[in-house]
Amino acid sequence: MDEITSEDHRRALSELGARSKSASRALAQASTQLKDRALELAGEILLASSDEILTANEQDLTRSASEGMPESALDRLRLDVRRIGSMASGLSQVASLADPIGETVKGWVRPNGLDIRQVRVPLGVIGIVYENRPNVTSDAAALCIKSGNAVMLRGSSSAIESNKVVAEVVRKALEKAGLPRDGVLLVEDTSREAAVEFMKLRGTIDCLIPRGGPSLIASILENATVPYIIDGDGNCHVYVDKDADLEMALSILVNAKTQRTSVCNAAESLVVHEEIAHVFLPLAARELEGVELVGDSRSQEMVSTIKPATEVDFATEFLSMKMSVAVAQSLDAAINHVNRYSSGHSEAIVTESLEAAERFTHEVDAACVLVNASTRFVDGEEFGLGAEIGISTQKLHARGPMGLEALTTLKYVVNGRGQIRV
Amino acid sequence: MDEITSEDHRRALSELGARSKSASRALAQASTQLKDRALELAGEILLASSDEILTANEQDLTRSASEGMPESALDRLRLDVRRIGSMASGLSQVASLADPIGETVKGWVRPNGLDIRQVRVPLGVIGIVYENRPNVTSDAAALCIKSGNAVMLRGSSSAIESNKVVAEVVRKALEKAGLPRDGVLLVEDTSREAAVEFMKLRGTIDCLIPRGGPSLIASILENATVPYIIDGDGNCHVYVDKDADLEMALSILVNAKTQRTSVCNAAESLVVHEEIAHVFLPLAARELEGVELVGDSRSQEMVSTIKPATEVDFATEFLSMKMSVAVAQSLDAAINHVNRYSSGHSEAIVTESLEAAERFTHEVDAACVLVNASTRFVDGEEFGLGAEIGISTQKLHARGPMGLEALTTLKYVVNGRGQIRV
Repeated sequence: MDEITSEDHRRALSELGARSKSASRALAQASTQLKDRALELAGEILLASSDEILTANEQDLTRSASEGMPESALDRLRLDVRRIGSMASGLSQVASLADPIGETVKGWVRPNGLDIRQVRVPLGVIGIVYENRPNVTSDAAALCIKSGNAVMLRGSSSAIESNKVVAEVVRKALEKAGLPRDGVLLVEDTSREAAVEFMKLRGTIDCLIPRGGPSLIASILENATVPYIIDGDGNCHVYVDKDADLEMALSILVNAKTQRTSVCNAAESLVVHEEIAHVFLPLAARELEGVELVGDSRSQEMVSTIKPATEVDFATEFLSMKMSVAVAQSLDAAINHVNRYSSGHSEAIVTESLEAAERFTHEVDAACVLVNASTRFVDGEEFGLGAEIGISTQKLHARGPMGLEALTTLKYVVNGRGQIRV
Repeated sequence: MDEITSEDHRRALSELGARSKSASRALAQASTQLKDRALELAGEILLASSDEILTANEQDLTRSASEGMPESALDRLRLDVRRIGSMASGLSQVASLADPIGETVKGWVRPNGLDIRQVRVPLGVIGIVYENRPNVTSDAAALCIKSGNAVMLRGSSSAIESNKVVAEVVRKALEKAGLPRDGVLLVEDTSREAAVEFMKLRGTIDCLIPRGGPSLIASILENATVPYIIDGDGNCHVYVDKDADLEMALSILVNAKTQRTSVCNAAESLVVHEEIAHVFLPLAARELEGVELVGDSRSQEMVSTIKPATEVDFATEFLSMKMSVAVAQSLDAAINHVNRYSSGHSEAIVTESLEAAERFTHEVDAACVLVNASTRFVDGEEFGLGAEIGISTQKLHARGPMGLEALTTLKYVVNGRGQIRV
């Protein structure tokens, strides 16, 4: 067999890209009614296709298990009747959200009579690169369709059979609703070369959203020529100020650290003001039973079970029952510590002091700063945005939980009566 | 002499970056009053330093002329008393603009009582790469300071002496106002290696704005790992619909093409509906006297002076007295032509038909679509945004003329009373 060259990958992806671009023009003009109809139909067809989906998923699971995939990853890959049900209800839920397209965000008239408006429009073609959760296929497709975009989905090879069936379900629903099937396209070539070519579809992909770990992000930074939004790590801190209500602080700390450890909005680091550390840290260590604590020398002096933390510990998103601890001599020291190690995701302060709350929210540089609330709330649904496509840790375009609006752009529409520039 | 390695460039730039980042924290918290004071002072010091600026500029001009720089480029590099005056008044003008920082863009309360706000904050450190206009040094610095950002300026080697003096003027003004001098930093190493390392200052530069031609953009796409906003080409079209007021169409066409040919919002292509082309094209050719017209076969049949256009002509931003011409059989054909060749900058339709105007504004994919107005209006000042940092042709973050808001991001500020997630 001839070797497949990167030129072949490029050509195949370009053809797919051209189909997506063409479909995006129709989706951009589609009424809310049509888009919602497609999403409702997709939910119905998905449920009706349960057997087919489960059979395809079984193939993926068998192959992945034989290739030695660990159980936690197999669990993410696994679909069952309940999970298919929640994919279907996810499709309806997106249908029920308000359509962001067509909103006039601002509008004004210039002294010469020019009427200028900024109108919300779809981005065009969204590219999503994701790992082995097949539910992302329908979730991401739904958000893209609702916001009037076409989507090119590039999932992992381990989930390819499941993804094919789920993508085909949504394509059928689009067609049945009178929209182009190619509004949703699955990139079936899951090779690494194709992934790199995918990131270079400049002029086709208007926005690439990578949903994956550090190696995917590194590849995007190195290879992508298309615009992208990075959904990054959450090395989130809880800072307990000297003026904190200690009971509230304990409750928020335990919730932020332990309610679900594997997610980006879980807390990874505790910072305590020196004035209350000797009281608070022993209480915290007791309430965080089962959490491995590593800390600076001051914290170790106060709690014997805290082991020494390295510089790397303070910078690490553990995503497990482990937490770093630092004692800060002042609010300034606490803010500096947070800004030094923060990944710019979500940072919380617990305090009754208005001044401390204001300084923390102003001076900490993160997508979300919280006063007297758990970092676990930083999430599209908890924020009331409806479903989310991810949480951006970058500053351009979208920052924090991304709902439908993050999948749109603005267009200037200028109306005149023959004005010319003098 | 030892060779300077890219490691040396990297180290020097990292040190500069750390100073900029540190200054950015103070600028982000600075009051509008302080920032305005710094800008007013910069204007005064600039005028008082005219002699020093002119001497430095003379050095740049002499060296550049001896290296064979063409007169048009020398003209962009040249400063005189009038240009220094307008740089100074530019600084005051930015001081007079409204401060975007601190605005609550949206705010709501969740059922659990969490109070969520999106607040406008500075991006942090802005990087600007620009060519040989020394006025960009003060213009860009002013917009960055006003929006609470620190700025790293990387101008061209040809303007280095002028840039050093102008940057130092603004640094002095910052200090005199009580703000950190390092809020403005000039990258004095103008080598190509340093430019590449500059684009890789990830974690330091929050937003890179390249102001230059296609080779700079290509280098950004290849090398940059920092977020950037592309200020791209303008291959702008004027479409004259069958229902156009032909007198208005002529006036807009001539203005868009000839009022100033070297700018991105000048028109480069004329598209005419077939039904009126035989009447309109001869008039247009007469009014566009001095403009070289190249067109498709239909247009050549109608006007003998129109020469054949190549595919490349239709895709070219001429920036000169040359224009491509196409005859479209229908509104659909016109929209397809524009979408095919558009660089996504500014596209105009001239029509009295509501339906044609609506279809054109909905279906043409560009930062700005204009109805019955010259493309030359697409500009920050003409739009009423005050000074502009550029015109974005990308869809993420900022699209179209970019004023102060484009130099900001949003931060979620969440206030609770001890809420935890269940």
